[in-house]
Amino acid sequence: MGEFEYIRWLREQTRGHSRVLVGPGDDTAVLAPFSQPVLVTTDMLMDGTDFLIEEVGPRAAGRKSLAANLSDIAAMAGVPVAAVVSVALPQLSGSLEFSQELFRGIRELADQFQTAIVGGDTNSWRGPFAISITLLGEATSLGAVRRSAALPGDWIFVTGSLGGSILGHHLNFTPRVQEALRLQEFVRLHAMIDVSDGLAADLNHILEESGCGAVLDAHAIPISDAAHELSRTSGKPPLQHALGDGEDFELVFTVSAADGAKLLSHSPLPGVALTKIGECIGAGLWIDVKGERQPLEPTGWVHQL
Amino acid sequence: MGEFEYIRWLREQTRGHSRVLVGPGDDTAVLAPFSQPVLVTTDMLMDGTDFLIEEVGPRAAGRKSLAANLSDIAAMAGVPVAAVVSVALPQLSGSLEFSQELFRGIRELADQFQTAIVGGDTNSWRGPFAISITLLGEATSLGAVRRSAALPGDWIFVTGSLGGSILGHHLNFTPRVQEALRLQEFVRLHAMIDVSDGLAADLNHILEESGCGAVLDAHAIPISDAAHELSRTSGKPPLQHALGDGEDFELVFTVSAADGAKLLSHSPLPGVALTKIGECIGAGLWIDVKGERQPLEPTGWVHQL
Repeated sequence: MGEFEYIRWLREQTRGHSRVLVGPGDDTAVLAPFSQPVLVTTDMLMDGTDFLIEEVGPRAAGRKSLAANLSDIAAMAGVPVAAVVSVALPQLSGSLEFSQELFRGIRELADQFQTAIVGGDTNSWRGPFAISITLLGEATSLGAVRRSAALPGDWIFVTGSLGGSILGHHLNFTPRVQEALRLQEFVRLHAMIDVSDGLAADLNHILEESGCGAVLDAHAIPISDAAHELSRTSGKPPLQHALGDGEDFELVFTVSAADGAKLLSHSPLPGVALTKIGECIGAGLWIDVKGERQPLEPTGWVHQL
Repeated sequence: MGEFEYIRWLREQTRGHSRVLVGPGDDTAVLAPFSQPVLVTTDMLMDGTDFLIEEVGPRAAGRKSLAANLSDIAAMAGVPVAAVVSVALPQLSGSLEFSQELFRGIRELADQFQTAIVGGDTNSWRGPFAISITLLGEATSLGAVRRSAALPGDWIFVTGSLGGSILGHHLNFTPRVQEALRLQEFVRLHAMIDVSDGLAADLNHILEESGCGAVLDAHAIPISDAAHELSRTSGKPPLQHALGDGEDFELVFTVSAADGAKLLSHSPLPGVALTKIGECIGAGLWIDVKGERQPLEPTGWVHQL
């Protein structure tokens, strides 16, 4: 697919999208006005850092690039709207098929989340594969959820299970866009983030921004099957993987104790685990292991597990 | 500057920007609602393709990356609002100074155009330097100017002078943001584009989208001093450089003959040349050279100059 055909194809994809006034092909895309605050997030993914392109292939790489951005919009309880995609393609034979597969991976996930791909910049060069996606979203009328409003006494929750993402989850996870929107309708979310760096690191971002601390319950952390599997070869306890691995792309959030009890008695997320993993306190980051409180490093490291 | 200091620095830059509700540091940036249509454009620039980073240095590379995006917003007569910046930095010694200079180049131009840098993704890797900027803008109440509404009988204008950009202009040009806005207030712009691929190529984009043709007057094309200088070593006539070189980042636009006459008698752009270079006709792309009409290739090539 040459550049002209590609642009025509992209235009066809966006035709009829309610927010796209001018699609790919002009100097810039034009979207209908945003009545709510506009969310903007960007991620650049690179061969050798975020995946090995030889191993995972272009379709999975394209999918992950958009999925990571969708996860950032989910973390604010936002609604994704439109994305632009820039790629640097290595000068290889088979580059036509490569870019078709790349855009197929992006397109499939974009369709699932009603996100229009409205433009981009496709280049080939002497370097390795890199892709940069910028995603625009819109806050709901309830507002964007930030990291900075956790309070001592808040209960801390996480969706899904954690750890061992490298074994496959980092490529095929479903961004928690719908879950975040349902949670925001059901309770008042004080602070939220998606787990990209690792549970301890990302929770620590919330604590720093909110000026409070937290204590986690080691026995409550939902450990993924992959974390158990990885533990068998890594020599690290599964919990260590759950606390530190990252790229889980699950949601960590805090709510009042009353809202927390409401979530435990009646989850608004059928089919997705929702687990209370701890509570916010005045200061510090701690984890209770077998009745004993230990410091939890933002790296996820715990001295004695 | 470590990542944390960098984010704090970025936050300080955006503090008080009227459109930024949440600046860099959260998962996504949050901008105030857009009452007018939202413009989105993106460009990825790469070492070895868009500049030689060893020669031009990071500050000029950063500046050019934002300037190219601003030029795309200018082409729609839009107002730039906010940008996100993703970079892939080679693992070199001196990378701290490199990124400081890079962001200084971006920041200086962003300030000049009241554009907030609201987020980004900074990575280092084994590959060469690459940077991807996505710029959001807002249409004026007069609407975004597109490529598709040129009409036979329209007069074709260009700002500034053309050709030889490689000698320096491609790094230090001022995007025609203000000029586009002034033009839009003064006349009804039918179609507009910025000259990135070259005058003939970009005018041809307008013609294809509008379904009409054009004839240019060879003697009217404003040839830059750089085109003359380059001609001395390239062996090509200066006009050939003006028609085909690209990266001039000037505006080409069409207006009715009545509006064209108005522009010639009273330019709204003091200090910036505004030249009538031809007229739209039914079909084809032509150039009148010494009274003789010749085909003009979209590459800028003319058989006999």
